[in-house]
Amino acid sequence: LQEGLAMKVSVIGPTGYTGRELVRILLRHGKVEDFLLFGRQEAYFHKEYPEFLGVCEKKIELLEAQKAVQGMDAVFIALPHKVSMEVTPLIRQADKKIKIIDLSADYRLTGADIYKRAYGVEHKDPGYLGKYVYGLCEANREAIRQARFVANPGCYPTSVLIPLIPLMEKGMLEGTVIADCKSGASGAGKSLSQMLHFVECNENIVPYKIFQHQHAYEMAQFMGFFDKSLDLIFTPQLLPIDTGILTVLYIKLKKSADKEKVKALYLERFAGEKFVRVLPESDMPTPAKVRNSNFCDINVFADKQKEYIIVVSAIDNLIKGGSGQAVQNLNIMSGLEEGEGLL
Amino acid sequence: LQEGLAMKVSVIGPTGYTGRELVRILLRHGKVEDFLLFGRQEAYFHKEYPEFLGVCEKKIELLEAQKAVQGMDAVFIALPHKVSMEVTPLIRQADKKIKIIDLSADYRLTGADIYKRAYGVEHKDPGYLGKYVYGLCEANREAIRQARFVANPGCYPTSVLIPLIPLMEKGMLEGTVIADCKSGASGAGKSLSQMLHFVECNENIVPYKIFQHQHAYEMAQFMGFFDKSLDLIFTPQLLPIDTGILTVLYIKLKKSADKEKVKALYLERFAGEKFVRVLPESDMPTPAKVRNSNFCDINVFADKQKEYIIVVSAIDNLIKGGSGQAVQNLNIMSGLEEGEGLL
Amino acid sequence: LQEGLAMKVSVIGPTGYTGRELVRILLRHGKVEDFLLFGRQEAYFHKEYPEFLGVCEKKIELLEAQKAVQGMDAVFIALPHKVSMEVTPLIRQADKKIKIIDLSADYRLTGADIYKRAYGVEHKDPGYLGKYVYGLCEANREAIRQARFVANPGCYPTSVLIPLIPLMEKGMLEGTVIADCKSGASGAGKSLSQMLHFVECNENIVPYKIFQHQHAYEMAQFMGFFDKSLDLIFTPQLLPIDTGILTVLYIKLKKSADKEKVKALYLERFAGEKFVRVLPESDMPTPAKVRNSNFCDINVFADKQKEYIIVVSAIDNLIKGGSGQAVQNLNIMSGLEEGEGLL
Amino acid sequence: LQEGLAMKVSVIGPTGYTGRELVRILLRHGKVEDFLLFGRQEAYFHKEYPEFLGVCEKKIELLEAQKAVQGMDAVFIALPHKVSMEVTPLIRQADKKIKIIDLSADYRLTGADIYKRAYGVEHKDPGYLGKYVYGLCEANREAIRQARFVANPGCYPTSVLIPLIPLMEKGMLEGTVIADCKSGASGAGKSLSQMLHFVECNENIVPYKIFQHQHAYEMAQFMGFFDKSLDLIFTPQLLPIDTGILTVLYIKLKKSADKEKVKALYLERFAGEKFVRVLPESDMPTPAKVRNSNFCDINVFADKQKEYIIVVSAIDNLIKGGSGQAVQNLNIMSGLEEGEGLL
Repeated sequence: LQEGLAMKVSVIGPTGYTGRELVRILLRHGKVEDFLLFGRQEAYFHKEYPEFLGVCEKKIELLEAQKAVQGMDAVFIALPHKVSMEVTPLIRQADKKIKIIDLSADYRLTGADIYKRAYGVEHKDPGYLGKYVYGLCEANREAIRQARFVANPGCYPTSVLIPLIPLMEKGMLEGTVIADCKSGASGAGKSLSQMLHFVECNENIVPYKIFQHQHAYEMAQFMGFFDKSLDLIFTPQLLPIDTGILTVLYIKLKKSADKEKVKALYLERFAGEKFVRVLPESDMPTPAKVRNSNFCDINVFADKQKEYIIVVSAIDNLIKGGSGQAVQNLNIMSGLEEGEGLL
Repeated sequence: LQEGLAMKVSVIGPTGYTGRELVRILLRHGKVEDFLLFGRQEAYFHKEYPEFLGVCEKKIELLEAQKAVQGMDAVFIALPHKVSMEVTPLIRQADKKIKIIDLSADYRLTGADIYKRAYGVEHKDPGYLGKYVYGLCEANREAIRQARFVANPGCYPTSVLIPLIPLMEKGMLEGTVIADCKSGASGAGKSLSQMLHFVECNENIVPYKIFQHQHAYEMAQFMGFFDKSLDLIFTPQLLPIDTGILTVLYIKLKKSADKEKVKALYLERFAGEKFVRVLPESDMPTPAKVRNSNFCDINVFADKQKEYIIVVSAIDNLIKGGSGQAVQNLNIMSGLEEGEGLL
Repeated sequence: LQEGLAMKVSVIGPTGYTGRELVRILLRHGKVEDFLLFGRQEAYFHKEYPEFLGVCEKKIELLEAQKAVQGMDAVFIALPHKVSMEVTPLIRQADKKIKIIDLSADYRLTGADIYKRAYGVEHKDPGYLGKYVYGLCEANREAIRQARFVANPGCYPTSVLIPLIPLMEKGMLEGTVIADCKSGASGAGKSLSQMLHFVECNENIVPYKIFQHQHAYEMAQFMGFFDKSLDLIFTPQLLPIDTGILTVLYIKLKKSADKEKVKALYLERFAGEKFVRVLPESDMPTPAKVRNSNFCDINVFADKQKEYIIVVSAIDNLIKGGSGQAVQNLNIMSGLEEGEGLL
Repeated sequence: LQEGLAMKVSVIGPTGYTGRELVRILLRHGKVEDFLLFGRQEAYFHKEYPEFLGVCEKKIELLEAQKAVQGMDAVFIALPHKVSMEVTPLIRQADKKIKIIDLSADYRLTGADIYKRAYGVEHKDPGYLGKYVYGLCEANREAIRQARFVANPGCYPTSVLIPLIPLMEKGMLEGTVIADCKSGASGAGKSLSQMLHFVECNENIVPYKIFQHQHAYEMAQFMGFFDKSLDLIFTPQLLPIDTGILTVLYIKLKKSADKEKVKALYLERFAGEKFVRVLPESDMPTPAKVRNSNFCDINVFADKQKEYIIVVSAIDNLIKGGSGQAVQNLNIMSGLEEGEGLL
């Protein structure tokens, strides 16, 4: 795409919460001239999300691969996992050059065996596992720039992995990283479940899937799955708030590392990043500070006497942990200003 | 029942939120020696409500009318409406003397035609409509004392009608009473629905069924349905809180009434009532002040210049608006201290 | 201002919640090239609101009237009431042509006597009461276009008065309008108070200042204060949510009015309004649907049998009830596209 | 105290949230015949907590040591830390035999130097540090039985230390225990602060005092402060809920320990404990399950492949983490049934 030219994109599966945010961002994206919505049933976007009455009353058309790619520069796939891998091959066949940004989990893992372990089913499009770039922009920017296929990271992995980048790049990690993560209820999706009944969720905080959450595979893979020297423990917890993830990381550095210099390392590493803010002094990352934004806020706490350092991060699970990051990926893939539509 | 003797009761349908509170109250009721639970499926109470682990691990037995009445002094029916009217005749047949306190809506209305209008189906036990005493304790205490069958009022009606008692008894009402009511989410029950999804309910307040809520019939009936001089407008609204109803009543008094004496009337009328507190000065009834209690808090606001007086009430929808009132009814029917188990 | 030319504006008092939203809007306003912040103490905006780190790190300069008007097209005054009337005369003296949009309550009322009754103190700039246009855009657009001074309506009045416009214009109101209003906690401001302690506010809803809220005067004035045929009862209630007002209006129409045509009247009256949405069928206005937007959502409910119609409205108290409306006023006063910065 | 005899107790400082819960428990305590309230200012309990209108309208008398001990069996001191150590010596002087249960932090630490490090001031009654039994009932029951002075543990320490008891007693701990703790807002007390403003706290979760919370000393002391082989990292976080603490512990066991037997160890160790529930299978401890109860719920998660086990606990911070535990201590000290007033 030439700078200055406008783009057209499709969104497949816009009725989930990340789809909703994706539409919100696309509406204000200066380089996206138009977009179309496709779903598994016909509907109107503003009937699904009545707050969009008068703002976006687009029809959600019944998905046909040909229509979804026709005249499009890119396709966002915001379908549930297990569904994306059924639809994606049709999209690829319909247009062999189209860019695909997949917000589902279906193309994040690079091996069919791990996919099966994580999601409990056989992958239906295994030939393309490994052909997607993992769209963690701050880590993989150059690869994303070249990519036709990007797998947008999960919300929890985004909150865990961005703050690990500086330490991983310097080889400072050792043993097990502990990620104690708390997510707002929108992270659990729009489908009904007892856990999301207001009375169950409200005035509560609920850990779930301890040692068993499927996102752990994605994080472990990024950290170097087959290098057995590193491991990750990930504890997801459901908060009585709408949006936001707070992650507290407990990290044992290699003996050679100087704890007092870690904050400086973070400041330096993320100095040029538009969407990572390393907070001053002991300011705390919180969901409120990043709500409705594409920021990942981070701070680092070290104490000489202590065996571990603590790194705290916060993101909006639907933006930086979902649609904001997806558009950031689109911007990078298309040679646009990385923050377009996101500030 | 002789004072001092212990009772046995059954609870049919203990798995809803009112059932849960009923069990909680029965556990501390000094005159209920034992109680049994019956449901439409076998289960264990502490599996349904894990907070009861080690506290109440009773089996919920599959309902058989004979078992549910055997050796019992009373039966609480906490089934959904439309179900109660199928089960109740069996209970009556199984024991012709047993006391029944029905927490469903099925026996509150006195006419089969109004029932159909309110609930959209034919009543299946119409011969018994009108044979139940409406269990609004503060209004109908003497009738309840004599009653074998009591229909426990709905939560909204309780919050609306208790504060109307003094004015109704004095014939001071005129025209339309406006009841603007706000209820916590437990009032909408334990079943899943989009409206009760955490993300939909949280950070919101949602009016619903304006001019169409089935509880309006019950209130209108109590106010004198066929006397066309009085009417009620009832606006239910869903709050992002677990329990509690706040009701604001806008009332035009008859011209002969002296607004400045209304508060005194309330204080006098409720002076002997254990569970009605007319608050001092301009203290506000709120859900927080009555949570987990059987109180109905009330205050009265009058201004000479204004056409309407305002009466504010607050109850816990599951206690005074449900199981607390049901046990208060049991106590009255059984000649017990009215506050037994409720303080 | 010529179309296409950029503007400069000052914000005096940007540290309250409405100030925060005003800054957020100005940052994305296409015709505001720059803005300066002034306060009663020096500070940095992103220290007051750390979510603005890297987004708006403007200095809040110590207020000097001359600096605040120098090179400016307009001044927003977002000071507390009682403070604005001390500062405003200095601003006027410093620049005799500058446009002023006052978000405080100090210039909304047209009489010094009423001001004293409402706010309990003498007005310090009484000569300018009555020289401000009341900035309810949908009612007073033409006057605002000509105005140099605009008094931005309060949040509660905005939610009450916009839905009354069609009925007032047609002379259909009679007697007392009842406004049962529920507001999120941000409406009570950023200052600490027992009422706003999390534990007091959470899981609760609290009516306050019944018959005594200062905003009642502003509403009554708009409805025609001295025409004794109309009155208003206004019941403010504090909700456990951050932002949003839900207002339920109970309205008795003149006998000549046809209830069944009221919805059509609303649809027609607001057809050309960018920021008023009359919802289809029985869709409910709610705070969630208008959050972070400048919309006022409205719906109308009528029932032949009932003495009153019900009109429900919802706004974001900080946007349409505060800074969004203020910018809408700026746009109108400056001949800009009315929705600039607000969509 | 002889079994069957009734007791009298004083509560000094009943106006905080723990004081409120203490009064609630004492009202239903079968062996406490009466209790008096004393504070630093005269007041009425039901004016401080209007939900107690008609339930407990006791006067809070101005504290005089002699009055507070006269005819009393025990004194609860529910004053803030730094205040308790000024008042306690007067109480001891006034009655040399009275039992004292101190809910403040002032007598939990055994050394004046550590106290100064934790609380930043010199201890004013250092001779009595070390003369208090640390009232963690499940660990120190026998010592409590003999004690005249009991220091009631903090809320966070209770949630962290009860689940460590089995591992400490077996010497299975090694290195650093990580305690990631989340507390409801009542844990931060009733005083006003920006952090507790509804709008700041709501829809958020805020870590604070990382590596610096004063409760860390109390926990470290219990774990063996001077035995440098064990350490604790404690991360407190403020939740947008009223009550409850959820603690997630990350624990590296000694190599000799068999991870798969840890759950069995917990079940065995706590089998006889009334107020510790080791949950079945993978049921999760949550604040909702223990709300308004004196339970500490625990579950244990182990995975062969992982370096750490995870132990999750939940308590009500005001009950088991405050007044419930205080009354449990009273019961033990007085030879009463341990659960009296608590079930």
